[in-house]
Amino acid sequence: MKKIVLDLNCDMGESFGNYKMGNDEDLIQYISSANVACGFHAGDPHVMRRTVSMAKKRSVAIGAHPGLPDLIGFGRRDMQVSPEELKDYFVYQIGALKAFVEAAGMKLQHVKQHGALLRMALEDEKLGLAMAESTKAVSPELIFVTHSGIPLVEMARGLGLRVAREAYADRAYNFDKTLVSRKLPGSVIKDPEQIKKRIAQLIEKGTVTTIDGKILELEFDTIALHGDTPGASEIIKTIRKQLDDLGVSIRPMAQIL
Amino acid sequence: MKKIVLDLNCDMGESFGNYKMGNDEDLIQYISSANVACGFHAGDPHVMRRTVSMAKKRSVAIGAHPGLPDLIGFGRRDMQVSPEELKDYFVYQIGALKAFVEAAGMKLQHVKQHGALLRMALEDEKLGLAMAESTKAVSPELIFVTHSGIPLVEMARGLGLRVAREAYADRAYNFDKTLVSRKLPGSVIKDPEQIKKRIAQLIEKGTVTTIDGKILELEFDTIALHGDTPGASEIIKTIRKQLDDLGVSIRPMAQIL
Amino acid sequence: MKKIVLDLNCDMGESFGNYKMGNDEDLIQYISSANVACGFHAGDPHVMRRTVSMAKKRSVAIGAHPGLPDLIGFGRRDMQVSPEELKDYFVYQIGALKAFVEAAGMKLQHVKQHGALLRMALEDEKLGLAMAESTKAVSPELIFVTHSGIPLVEMARGLGLRVAREAYADRAYNFDKTLVSRKLPGSVIKDPEQIKKRIAQLIEKGTVTTIDGKILELEFDTIALHGDTPGASEIIKTIRKQLDDLGVSIRPMAQIL
Amino acid sequence: MKKIVLDLNCDMGESFGNYKMGNDEDLIQYISSANVACGFHAGDPHVMRRTVSMAKKRSVAIGAHPGLPDLIGFGRRDMQVSPEELKDYFVYQIGALKAFVEAAGMKLQHVKQHGALLRMALEDEKLGLAMAESTKAVSPELIFVTHSGIPLVEMARGLGLRVAREAYADRAYNFDKTLVSRKLPGSVIKDPEQIKKRIAQLIEKGTVTTIDGKILELEFDTIALHGDTPGASEIIKTIRKQLDDLGVSIRPMAQIL
Repeated sequence: MKKIVLDLNCDMGESFGNYKMGNDEDLIQYISSANVACGFHAGDPHVMRRTVSMAKKRSVAIGAHPGLPDLIGFGRRDMQVSPEELKDYFVYQIGALKAFVEAAGMKLQHVKQHGALLRMALEDEKLGLAMAESTKAVSPELIFVTHSGIPLVEMARGLGLRVAREAYADRAYNFDKTLVSRKLPGSVIKDPEQIKKRIAQLIEKGTVTTIDGKILELEFDTIALHGDTPGASEIIKTIRKQLDDLGVSIRPMAQIL
Repeated sequence: MKKIVLDLNCDMGESFGNYKMGNDEDLIQYISSANVACGFHAGDPHVMRRTVSMAKKRSVAIGAHPGLPDLIGFGRRDMQVSPEELKDYFVYQIGALKAFVEAAGMKLQHVKQHGALLRMALEDEKLGLAMAESTKAVSPELIFVTHSGIPLVEMARGLGLRVAREAYADRAYNFDKTLVSRKLPGSVIKDPEQIKKRIAQLIEKGTVTTIDGKILELEFDTIALHGDTPGASEIIKTIRKQLDDLGVSIRPMAQIL
Repeated sequence: MKKIVLDLNCDMGESFGNYKMGNDEDLIQYISSANVACGFHAGDPHVMRRTVSMAKKRSVAIGAHPGLPDLIGFGRRDMQVSPEELKDYFVYQIGALKAFVEAAGMKLQHVKQHGALLRMALEDEKLGLAMAESTKAVSPELIFVTHSGIPLVEMARGLGLRVAREAYADRAYNFDKTLVSRKLPGSVIKDPEQIKKRIAQLIEKGTVTTIDGKILELEFDTIALHGDTPGASEIIKTIRKQLDDLGVSIRPMAQIL
Repeated sequence: MKKIVLDLNCDMGESFGNYKMGNDEDLIQYISSANVACGFHAGDPHVMRRTVSMAKKRSVAIGAHPGLPDLIGFGRRDMQVSPEELKDYFVYQIGALKAFVEAAGMKLQHVKQHGALLRMALEDEKLGLAMAESTKAVSPELIFVTHSGIPLVEMARGLGLRVAREAYADRAYNFDKTLVSRKLPGSVIKDPEQIKKRIAQLIEKGTVTTIDGKILELEFDTIALHGDTPGASEIIKTIRKQLDDLGVSIRPMAQIL
């Protein structure tokens, strides 16, 4: 099985006030979809406007990247929120970004949960469902992006949402298709050669090798890239070239699903 | 000149987390348009959802009430923001509320500046223009609510926006049609009899008497009521009855303009 | 065993900006120690100053009541913080309040964990220890207030801190001396007659009856009262009178330990 | 007049959560006093602890750098705060940092106003006085750092505070000894050669040349360096070497005043 059309997504707009994070101007050249922070865990209204404007210039599609209300913790710390609270956080953040996107004459493409939210969705199905429901509540046309192989994929589809399943080339996998925790050694793959191999395997065989050496089949529509690791820019450039060389066409997920 | 159709607007949704402000459940019975706080100076995502739901139940139209990012100061303290910063704050807040309104199957009706923003718009035309421009940027169908008699009315109309001009029955006026500062004695009128007289004068003659006794002609589409003063509930109930007795029909501003 | 000298503590200073919470002016007449919010889950610098000033006027001793950085959730939602992060939150908040207390010519008496922090301390000993260690780091003379009967009491003593053990007259107990979760029915006791009986039992027998009818011995130095329940003021007044009638002398915990 | 003992101060601890700002680890080698952000305009409890620890290791004295509650604007935007509000913000922030400093076994040396606060102090004497009064309220032993040549120097001395007068080598001066606004061209001097000349002039003649070429006499106890400009590290290293070569001894301000 060889993928020939794929989306590449990357988190963007994570600067805040005077604080700069990431190298968005550079990375955006290589991707087809940008997940834009919405002001809770990162991002602010000015950063959001500028990121939208930059994505428009590069014809990159825009998604909302809602997070927990925890700027100090960058949305990476679990919080005991109820499904209803989480829904409200999603509607608020997606709505705020949607306004910037529409003010720029574009259309919001997708919603992807940030940071601790994926882990929380895995541990509590009601929270995952709340994320999908609130996405649909803002607009049933929004694509819901989540981790390939988890029950949330089917739950979101059950609501009538289009779902983009995500694979990682630079994160280690457990046997249940979840990601190895960032706290464990080997969870983040930084060696460009290894990443290249994993990309090739994903594209050509549709599989990923787990941290303990097993082979998993993985269906995916989009590959998530990380812009905040050292050397990210160079790695992403390399990946993009590799995909081009493999004959993969990179397009925003709305053109794929 | 006798007004026969009018809008009554009131600030709502100013609670935050565990903090309750105002008596929205009661007041909403008497008004036609609610200005809902958007999380910067007051309000939070849960309060916003609940306020929208309550307004829907009462068939009250909903507007956004964006404010400065100053929760401690309740958005009443001037801040040195640039027009561009202010635009971004407006797009963000209006967008967030709009998502809740649309998720409830309604349509956002209007935008009204909160707290220090009116004063800032009067002192710096660029800031006033930024408020109108960002309202239009979110949607040209939004009604822009501002103080009757100030240059911003025509500026907003110049952008193609419908403008609802606002009059106050419980605030003292200066000769230039601005409101007397809250810091000065007599600025807020609390005596129900006085408020009734001012309402009658507004409706029957289209005028208001300034703090130093002069008569001003005032065109207006909506009367702003305050829900946060002691006895507000009783006063607003009385005003509503008085307007009914005067034969004035109370309707959301979108049905008037 | 009859207690003849006791401390009565109550949470105070939980207002924020324009938001008023609790009836501090009234309640403070009946207590000997005030737990003052420090700006993370509630309280702001102005509220802190005013609360300190009010306590001084009433000769009520002041303690810090640090919470999680979660104003929307009032510090009642668990957050995944590390012991080191929690220590830093404690030092910051205790230090901020201590400055107000010392500026008023008083001395900070104690530190008591707020909201979700007690539950988190029970679930993870390292977090409880972090609370005690950071209290000591600010000043070894501070009294550490925590729930009677839990391991944290001895852990804090092990650091050389004086510990005030707390009992509740208006909260239901489990058999392990923890409080019944607020989410469960019967967890908060609101009937004044029941509260009176529990006070009498605490004072005269040194015991508390659990939610399922068992009798627990409970050593305690201070009774915690809640000011945020409806009718709190009346209940606290009644309790104080009852204690006076029982011949119990109410004194700040620093005079007892 | 040749200065032979001087303090060099630099703003530090301006990172926040995942956001890194400045190159503190490097710069701290060259200075004698660090102005540490306190969590309102920048900094967070973890950053504060780490910065204090780093300063201790380098034997650099620590001061509080309180700012306006405006993280998005980095405390550089004027806010309409009352003197009483400002006092409370100072007591809170100074107290929070003081706790970290004392927990590390050190003593807080000084307080310096951040960002818009200097401008606000110049425009409204009551605000400047509030800054000095609240500094004294926390501890009369704290040194108050402010701009050389402005009335606030004498006001703070009038309260009994020691005052460290500050000069800038990399900012242009107006004739009234205020700094040229950052918004104007030429306000920030970036050319290392120019900075070196200004340093030499300050040390050897005790004067500064204004933006329009006039010579001002300037008394000063400390020179403020900026760590957030590109190349700051190299410039500060150069300045330190120049001062060493000029025979100037660099010592914390507490050893000078």
